[in-house]
Amino acid sequence: MGETVAVIGAGAVGAYYGARLAQAGHDTRFLMRRDYEAVRANGLSITSPDGDFTLDAAAARSSVEIGPVDWVICGLKTTSLDDVPALVSPCVGPNTRILCLMNGLGVEERFAEWFGAERIFAGLAFTCINRGEPGCVNHLRYGAVTVGHFLNDPSEVQGALDLWKGATVEFSGTDSLLRSRWEKLGWNIPFNGLCVAGGGITTDLVVGDPDLRAAARRSMQEVADAGNADLAAHGEACRIDAEAMIDRMFTLTDAMGVYRPSTMIDFVDGQPMEVEEMFGEPLRRAQVLGVDTPHIALLTALLRRLNRKA
Amino acid sequence: MGETVAVIGAGAVGAYYGARLAQAGHDTRFLMRRDYEAVRANGLSITSPDGDFTLDAAAARSSVEIGPVDWVICGLKTTSLDDVPALVSPCVGPNTRILCLMNGLGVEERFAEWFGAERIFAGLAFTCINRGEPGCVNHLRYGAVTVGHFLNDPSEVQGALDLWKGATVEFSGTDSLLRSRWEKLGWNIPFNGLCVAGGGITTDLVVGDPDLRAAARRSMQEVADAGNADLAAHGEACRIDAEAMIDRMFTLTDAMGVYRPSTMIDFVDGQPMEVEEMFGEPLRRAQVLGVDTPHIALLTALLRRLNRKA
Repeated sequence: MGETVAVIGAGAVGAYYGARLAQAGHDTRFLMRRDYEAVRANGLSITSPDGDFTLDAAAARSSVEIGPVDWVICGLKTTSLDDVPALVSPCVGPNTRILCLMNGLGVEERFAEWFGAERIFAGLAFTCINRGEPGCVNHLRYGAVTVGHFLNDPSEVQGALDLWKGATVEFSGTDSLLRSRWEKLGWNIPFNGLCVAGGGITTDLVVGDPDLRAAARRSMQEVADAGNADLAAHGEACRIDAEAMIDRMFTLTDAMGVYRPSTMIDFVDGQPMEVEEMFGEPLRRAQVLGVDTPHIALLTALLRRLNRKA
Repeated sequence: MGETVAVIGAGAVGAYYGARLAQAGHDTRFLMRRDYEAVRANGLSITSPDGDFTLDAAAARSSVEIGPVDWVICGLKTTSLDDVPALVSPCVGPNTRILCLMNGLGVEERFAEWFGAERIFAGLAFTCINRGEPGCVNHLRYGAVTVGHFLNDPSEVQGALDLWKGATVEFSGTDSLLRSRWEKLGWNIPFNGLCVAGGGITTDLVVGDPDLRAAARRSMQEVADAGNADLAAHGEACRIDAEAMIDRMFTLTDAMGVYRPSTMIDFVDGQPMEVEEMFGEPLRRAQVLGVDTPHIALLTALLRRLNRKA
C-alpha cells in the first residue's frame, strides 16, 4: 500500500518530512552523509511539539543503493543544486515524481530541464526545524507545507497531497506554484537576510527592533511587488495580497520566539549560504521587470559579500 | 605670534591636524588618554606622504591643565558627544573659537547650544588617517579640510583659514556648512556603512564589487536627495550636484586602495561606532522631510544592531 520514497538531502527539513512519510507507512530511504553512522546505530530521532519519536530509518550512502522510487523528496541546499542530476537520477524511473523541498526561486525550472516538467513538484515548508546531534532533528514549531505542481496541474497536485494523507503534517495544495514561491520569499528574504546582515541574530531581534522590523516590512513589500510583476510576466492571473502576506508573516514570526533561520546558522557556522536562489534570482527578475527593490538589492549585495568571506 | 590651541580628543584625526598646527608655530596642547605616556616619553610621531616627523608635543591629562585658549580643535568621536561640555569648557574663554573635527550631522548644533553659535566652526576632513602604536599616527592619503562657520559668516570663515596659514594642510572655506556636511556624508554613509555591514571590509572591496558599488552609488544619491531637501528646509539657496558628488567620491575612493574607514575599525575592534550622527540623524531628517532613503534606512538599522552587539 505504501509508496517507495527516496529522501535526497536529508538535512533537517528532508529528514523531518521523510520521517513523517515513513511514520505514515511509506517505504522511505534516506540518502545521508553526516548522519549516516548515527542513524544506522540509533535510528533517526525527532523531537517535535507533536510528540517525539525515533525511526528505524533506512539510511543509504548512495542514491544507486536506493534505486528508482515512486517519489523523490529533494531536500538539498540550493548551494548543492549542481549536484542534483548525479544524486537524484539513480532514483528516477519512468513514473517517478520529484518533490523539491528547497528554498528560493528558479529551482523547479532546473529540475524540469533535467527530469521533465510534468514530474516536478515543490513543497514549500513553513516550519522551524534545526539539526541537533548526528541522527537528531529538532522540529520546533509550525510545519505546514504548501504543495504545487510545476505546470499547476490540479490532478497532479491532488496526487502529491494523496502521498501525505495519514502523515502528521499539514499539507495543502496551491493553484500557483509561482505565487506561493514568492510568498515564501516574503519570509525568507527579510528574515534570512536581516538575521545574517544583522551579524548572525535570531528572528526575535528582528521583529523586536523597530528599525529592523520596518526593514523587514519594506522588504516584504518589495517581494510582493516583484512577485506580482513576475506573475503578470508569466501570464498568471493571480496576485499576491501584500498587506495580507505581511500581516501573516509578522504574526507567525512574532510567535516564533528565539529562532535561528537556516541561512543565519550557515553564516555563523561559516558554511555556504543559499544566496543566489533566495536573493539573487528574485533580484534579477525584479530588475528585468523594472521593479525597484532597494532593500532586496542591498541585502543581496551584503549576503554575496558575506558568503565570500565565510 | 602663534595662537594657543587645545586639541581635545587627540585620536588619529585630532592628533594629526593638531601636529600640523604645532608645526606651523602655534602653541598647541593635546588632551590625551591612551597616548599620553608614549607622547611624553617619545613625542608624537606622524608618518605622512608629505614627510614623516616627530613633534615634541605638549600632552596634558586634563583640560583644566590646558586652560583657556584661542582655538579648541575638538576631535572627539561623536559617541563621546555628551562628554564635550566637561572636556571642552575648561579651555573656553570669552574669545575662544571652537573647530569641530567630527563626523556626522547635528554636531555643531549641540556645540552652539553649549557654547554659543558665533564661535562654532566645523572642519570636514577628507583624509585617510589611522592610529598606529601609542604615540604614532599614520597619515596615508588625502588631507584636505573644508572649513565652515556655523552661521556661515564669511569673515569668520576667513579667520579660521588664517589659523591654518603656513600649516602643511590644504584648507578651504565653504559658504554653506550644511551643504558641505551632507557632501561629506556622501562618502561616510556608503563607505563606513557598507564596510561595516559587509562584515568589516576595506573600501577597495566595496568599489571593486559591482553589487556593493551600485549600493554605494544609490546611497550617495539618497544622501544628495535628503541633503537638498534639508538645505531647502533651512532656507539655503545652494544645492548638492548629485552626479558631480558621486563622480568625485568614486574617483577619490578608487584611488584609496585598501583603506579601513574609522567605523569599520571600530567594528572589528568591538568599539562603539559613530552611528547616530553619521546615519541616524541624516535618516531622521530625510524621514521628516518625506525623502525616501531605503539604503540609508537599512544601513542605519543594521549598524544600530551591530553596534549593540559590539
